[in-house]
Amino acid sequence: MIKVVATNKVKKEKIDEFIALAEKLVEATNMYDEGCIHYDIYQDINDPQVLTFIEEWESMETLNKHMAAAHFEEFVPQLGAFADGPEDVHIYQKAL
Amino acid sequence: MIKVVATNKVKKEKIDEFIALAEKLVEATNMYDEGCIHYDIYQDINDPQVLTFIEEWESMETLNKHMAAAHFEEFVPQLGAFADGPEDVHIYQKAL
Repeated sequence: MIKVVATNKVKKEKIDEFIALAEKLVEATNMYDEGCIHYDIYQDINDPQVLTFIEEWESMETLNKHMAAAHFEEFVPQLGAFADGPEDVHIYQKAL
Repeated sequence: MIKVVATNKVKKEKIDEFIALAEKLVEATNMYDEGCIHYDIYQDINDPQVLTFIEEWESMETLNKHMAAAHFEEFVPQLGAFADGPEDVHIYQKAL
């Protein structure tokens, strides 16, 4: 099992647009991408500009297919345009 | 539901000790802390020095009790001593 944490610092005036577009990505991912166990977007309770995808995938293979999917390639650059700086992405395995 | 992502950059020579101590914290949390849905320690597949707690709690109240528990107060400063710099902690709610 693979966990992904992808953290974005979103421009204050673009938060609503980021969330609306992230919803489309979440929906398309849940509809089309095999091996997706969880795929959700979270907002920091202390800093609403921090919006983070927390994801769970069956394997690296299914994650790689997701990152090559048409909806990923369409929406992720658009999401990036709403952010201050690049997305901070970590891909994890359980340490225990 | 509350999600916590607490990211640590651990000194290279302290990775094994960090994981062993984190295991004690995970065990004590699962044993004693009410409202804990998930509490796991993950390692970045691209950088083994990045060790991250990804947690799920029923509420802020249960998270606050966890952070005041004896095992938290005992183990977290010890974990901090194995890290390069402070832990990066985000507390999240679902944005959708």
